[in-house]
Amino acid sequence: MTKVYNFSAGPAVLPKEVIKKAQDELTSFKGSQMSVMEISHRSSLYTEMFQKAEEDLRYLMEIPDDYDILFQQGGATLQFTTVPLNLANNYRRIGYIDTGHWSQRAYQEAELLHKFDVDVVASSKDSNYTELVHQVELENKNYDYVHLTTNNTIEGTMYRDLPSGLAGQTIVADMSSNILGQKYNVDDFGLIYAGAQKNIGIAGLTVVIVKRDLIGKVSNLPSMLDYKKQADKQSALNTPPVFAIYMAGLVFEWLKEQDGVAAMQALNEEKSQLLYEYLDNSTLFSSPVKREDRSLTNIPFVTGNKQLDEKFIAEATSAGLLNLKGHRLVGGMRASLYNAFELEGVKALVDFMKEFELKNKGE
Amino acid sequence: MTKVYNFSAGPAVLPKEVIKKAQDELTSFKGSQMSVMEISHRSSLYTEMFQKAEEDLRYLMEIPDDYDILFQQGGATLQFTTVPLNLANNYRRIGYIDTGHWSQRAYQEAELLHKFDVDVVASSKDSNYTELVHQVELENKNYDYVHLTTNNTIEGTMYRDLPSGLAGQTIVADMSSNILGQKYNVDDFGLIYAGAQKNIGIAGLTVVIVKRDLIGKVSNLPSMLDYKKQADKQSALNTPPVFAIYMAGLVFEWLKEQDGVAAMQALNEEKSQLLYEYLDNSTLFSSPVKREDRSLTNIPFVTGNKQLDEKFIAEATSAGLLNLKGHRLVGGMRASLYNAFELEGVKALVDFMKEFELKNKGE
Repeated sequence: MTKVYNFSAGPAVLPKEVIKKAQDELTSFKGSQMSVMEISHRSSLYTEMFQKAEEDLRYLMEIPDDYDILFQQGGATLQFTTVPLNLANNYRRIGYIDTGHWSQRAYQEAELLHKFDVDVVASSKDSNYTELVHQVELENKNYDYVHLTTNNTIEGTMYRDLPSGLAGQTIVADMSSNILGQKYNVDDFGLIYAGAQKNIGIAGLTVVIVKRDLIGKVSNLPSMLDYKKQADKQSALNTPPVFAIYMAGLVFEWLKEQDGVAAMQALNEEKSQLLYEYLDNSTLFSSPVKREDRSLTNIPFVTGNKQLDEKFIAEATSAGLLNLKGHRLVGGMRASLYNAFELEGVKALVDFMKEFELKNKGE
Repeated sequence: MTKVYNFSAGPAVLPKEVIKKAQDELTSFKGSQMSVMEISHRSSLYTEMFQKAEEDLRYLMEIPDDYDILFQQGGATLQFTTVPLNLANNYRRIGYIDTGHWSQRAYQEAELLHKFDVDVVASSKDSNYTELVHQVELENKNYDYVHLTTNNTIEGTMYRDLPSGLAGQTIVADMSSNILGQKYNVDDFGLIYAGAQKNIGIAGLTVVIVKRDLIGKVSNLPSMLDYKKQADKQSALNTPPVFAIYMAGLVFEWLKEQDGVAAMQALNEEKSQLLYEYLDNSTLFSSPVKREDRSLTNIPFVTGNKQLDEKFIAEATSAGLLNLKGHRLVGGMRASLYNAFELEGVKALVDFMKEFELKNKGE
């Protein structure tokens, strides 16, 4: 059987050791004769597991003590609503830095609430989101916060450093597709959120990291969307997604065994470099993304010929290189190289691309 | 090692065969060499799995074609908010039948929205929720819907038949703790919702069954809370909780193999009868719940002596009878006997209680 490599943008590949461990103990968690899927969220079995997951994440990201960590549901998309409801409580005005589809979705959901002034303060739309905005000039300084997307999953761009011009502003970041894969200082942000199905674990969990003094300022929010109520109840205001939290905990343990985020980032640099170098030297394939803004985790590429793209995707799939189709909004191909994606998979892809290039030179 | 029985009210015991199947195929779903936790929600692997889960649930509950089935996140508690936002769009008035803690939580969350008139149209609070309300007199008929809880998980009451006085009203039901364990006609309801962690599968999934002509009447809702948008996207408006949906699908398959809801209900009658009969004949233990309103799935009981209750719970735990502690709001003990809870576990409990009664007669 051909070995397969899963380039999916999410739900994405998980560390093999993590899946194996989950499999081994699926019928009896910590010798309890109960599956982790069956344990009560009011039991010590759960509490210990939950607390360890939280501690490990705090350690891995060096999250200061004055930040709460919440384990929520609904994905980043629900956070597009929840963040404004909780944080836009003073000026009722939010600035959005627009660097791609998910940045847009974030401010569109804020607009839907009809409660806030929603300003797009900078955008790279004119360059078709193939690059980022690095300088922001705020005409109005009265923002409750400025929102940005650290890694644009579809367009393949990534902030290594935050844009200039944001001094004194509270920054909120959607880190869904590069949390734990690239080092950031949590201190630079008022709030960070991320869907789990890329670098954290499985779909159905959203991690929110929020500076404690920013929350608890709005009353009458729906309880499930109230960060303060959730923080006060250690994210167990109602039944939390126990299994998804368990899987995140296993991934955090695995990350610690891999020497943490800095080591992961080094590996991610190596993996992505391998593919970018090939792309930049290929006469068939190319990266549409500006060099200094390229993502470590999501790498779109094209041949420039739609039919050839399709042929490539079909042949790659047959060769066990799965889920390389680009997002429908941008077309082409995309390789997502999250933390759990192995270096040998990138080598396999580049080898396959070289062969394909040779065979299809004249096209 | 003592065999354990898990009486947890949720997350609760799952069918052994289901856990075994999940374990067997956890590293390779349908021969894909990918875990079901790793598959893309845009892949055919996912779509087929999702569609089968939906079809099986439709079959099991005989859900008519004019109802949509949604797989959501956030638990019943988020539905306490989402249902009013979507359905209370005409009169902006909702009637609530108050039969316990979760009924209360439902109308409290509706009140928090400050958009609707929230009327408690009937309540059994005066009898401490040890019975239900069977007759409702609506002074105002202009309700968008009337909400009830079919099974009160904490208090141990259950509607076998809907209350009288609701003719012509749209009925919305929280069925979290007895969906698929007791037969209801879906046609009697405008909307049914249920957290998955009792009879459906694992925590992190909420099933919503809604008559299609009731939705799509409100604009500008947050997308994640908009039933119409969710229905139009087959619940994949963003990344759905793939693994939780997979587990629900396995439970639905298992239920079909057990001959469906009617067979489950018969078994639930047998299991609960065994315990109720003992309780009614015991000189130590008793059920606080009015006979005709007793739940099939959640059975509270007490000795009348708090210290003796605690002693019982401690000794039962040592004997492998786990999670029998009653909810903090009512104290005492509670045995939750969901579909996956085996008859032999009830026998083990009754045997243990008999022995405990003998030993503690003089207390």
